[in-house]
Amino acid sequence: MGSITDKVVVLGVGCTRFGERHDASAADLMEEAVAEAVADAGIERDAIEAAWVGTYFPATGTAGVALSDGLRLYDKPVTRVENYCASGMDAFRNACFGVASGMYEIALVTGVEKLKDFGDRGIPDQGDHPILGRGRSAPGGFALAATRYLHEHGLGRDVLADVAVKNHANGALHAKAHLRREITAEQALAAPMIASPLGLYDCAPTSDGAAAIVVASPEAARALGRDDAVKVKAVALDVWTGRPYHWNDFDYTHWPTTRRATADAFRQAGIAAGDVDVVESHDCFTITELLNIEDMGLAEPGQAWKLVRDGECGPDGRIPVNPSGGLKAFGHPIGATGARMVYEVTRQLQGRSEGAQVPGSPEIGVCQNIGGAGGNLTAVTVLGR
Amino acid sequence: MGSITDKVVVLGVGCTRFGERHDASAADLMEEAVAEAVADAGIERDAIEAAWVGTYFPATGTAGVALSDGLRLYDKPVTRVENYCASGMDAFRNACFGVASGMYEIALVTGVEKLKDFGDRGIPDQGDHPILGRGRSAPGGFALAATRYLHEHGLGRDVLADVAVKNHANGALHAKAHLRREITAEQALAAPMIASPLGLYDCAPTSDGAAAIVVASPEAARALGRDDAVKVKAVALDVWTGRPYHWNDFDYTHWPTTRRATADAFRQAGIAAGDVDVVESHDCFTITELLNIEDMGLAEPGQAWKLVRDGECGPDGRIPVNPSGGLKAFGHPIGATGARMVYEVTRQLQGRSEGAQVPGSPEIGVCQNIGGAGGNLTAVTVLGR
Repeated sequence: MGSITDKVVVLGVGCTRFGERHDASAADLMEEAVAEAVADAGIERDAIEAAWVGTYFPATGTAGVALSDGLRLYDKPVTRVENYCASGMDAFRNACFGVASGMYEIALVTGVEKLKDFGDRGIPDQGDHPILGRGRSAPGGFALAATRYLHEHGLGRDVLADVAVKNHANGALHAKAHLRREITAEQALAAPMIASPLGLYDCAPTSDGAAAIVVASPEAARALGRDDAVKVKAVALDVWTGRPYHWNDFDYTHWPTTRRATADAFRQAGIAAGDVDVVESHDCFTITELLNIEDMGLAEPGQAWKLVRDGECGPDGRIPVNPSGGLKAFGHPIGATGARMVYEVTRQLQGRSEGAQVPGSPEIGVCQNIGGAGGNLTAVTVLGR
Repeated sequence: MGSITDKVVVLGVGCTRFGERHDASAADLMEEAVAEAVADAGIERDAIEAAWVGTYFPATGTAGVALSDGLRLYDKPVTRVENYCASGMDAFRNACFGVASGMYEIALVTGVEKLKDFGDRGIPDQGDHPILGRGRSAPGGFALAATRYLHEHGLGRDVLADVAVKNHANGALHAKAHLRREITAEQALAAPMIASPLGLYDCAPTSDGAAAIVVASPEAARALGRDDAVKVKAVALDVWTGRPYHWNDFDYTHWPTTRRATADAFRQAGIAAGDVDVVESHDCFTITELLNIEDMGLAEPGQAWKLVRDGECGPDGRIPVNPSGGLKAFGHPIGATGARMVYEVTRQLQGRSEGAQVPGSPEIGVCQNIGGAGGNLTAVTVLGR
């Protein structure tokens, strides 16, 4: 395996407000995010040579055509990428390959999902597997991990509440977040149970939204006078099948795909865990953030809850995790989430994440996006200044 | 726009028998095609570093997981690509980017579709558009093109029957084709009408099937002693939205995406239409093959029917089109078709398409794969020795 390090930069980013967007169709959301990304990139829309759309639910084909039609982005190649909840970050990965291959100078990535108009079409409806069949739910699956993690390390539900409190506090500061309100640990612990030990505040909401990224070759960025463009240091994807997390021999306290994708991404970027300054991580449930922190090597196994409790993962901490509020408070429009992470980390590295900016001029940022049902996958992107 | 010329080769190809495959699931079909491609590539399955799956219908996510699980292809990145009937060739395009980017040395492409177990889930059910809504059918849409083409050029349905007769004759010789029987022009003209002027024999069948391609860097191929590997000269994709073919000002006698994608592919490959030795073209309907021949510049507008009638597009003709039998007789499992075209042209260029081999040691082959409903897209791949 090689790398694409130094072959692709992020030229511009955009993101809609996440939440109940009954005012907007999927095409409207894409248009809103792309318009911001194109303006942010300082290019004319016509400069885009190719596009990738990451989306999970929309029926076959329509996502790409909706992007083209909605944007009046005529006569350009558009590819739909779908990879469960990591669809957005895998679309980003493929667009990076398109640029790094030498085919395109400037390419567009959009992630989008429209969930709120369709009742239960969100996280609770996940869980089918081509071999194992249906019948599982996402909260149920992650509850197994939470149960085991708390048991193994002798912990209570309060360590999960710490994550919810942190991410709600972060989300309250971000103008585009879905859930912009602080909560207390007492509220989290008293909330209705969804799948024990996960209560309501342990679960990410079902959201509408879109995010967009303009990627370019370093040469194209230089020609535009954009020496400040954030560099794509690594794009990694790892798929875990055959022994998915419902298998009997899985210990439920780590995600192999996150470990392997992170290891590969760090190899590509030539960094170690200690070099990471800011992280957007896939906290679909509070337990997932704790596991992610450990799987990325930012804490020893069983120690992530301490980092969170001690404020080390807070916005002013040693290693801020989800300064945006994460999936938990920013929201989780499935196909949009991976692109939204790249949006957030790019702005963090450029020191312009108003409200949510972490201090200390971060130089290396990591985006970690999980997908899957039964089987499992993780996409990891490393960005750097 | 750049190119990936000389950065990717085809190391091996595989294809299932197309047809009514009630004996096999989508995962079974992928396994069958991939096993052949991996053996053909002369590699161990473990040498595959990443995979792309092109599929249209299968529900979100499952295609990639089914590939991983079915093949025991654990811990590798797998991406699902979906782009209507061109899903297979767009998966090939993205895999080529993955290799050309420098990330992977050896990658796998699979296209698959399982249609026959689900009643009308084939071509007749196409036709939705995010803006225009539903209500159209593929035969109905292409019948408009046929009506106009025949009217403009003063032709009768017999020119369509010529295409059906040629492609059925070709398919009868190919061991993996869905419809392995010759037909006469009289049979074609007397067959039940589907959407006037398109009768039953003007329409491709609904098929199950899968095809697979192993692509590699030229360095990896050399290391394997494979100096005979077919070169990927060009991968192009063009999407046509905004003025799709149901718009009032469309003249119905050409496909703009095929013209533009072909022009871009020929630019990348540094060839002209006269350099092409063999073609696999998207004959979802007989009229489509005639339009494709003209849109690729192999005949002047209104002249393709003459080439077919004079035998110039037959297996022994000046420019063989669909020596495999095409979608018309080989079959059209939607996501598989684009990969199947690469399978066929690769074997033609290597002189080993048993039964269907064209004479004269072809050096340049073109695969042309249309997708879309209302809006429209074409993927074009150029392969060379």
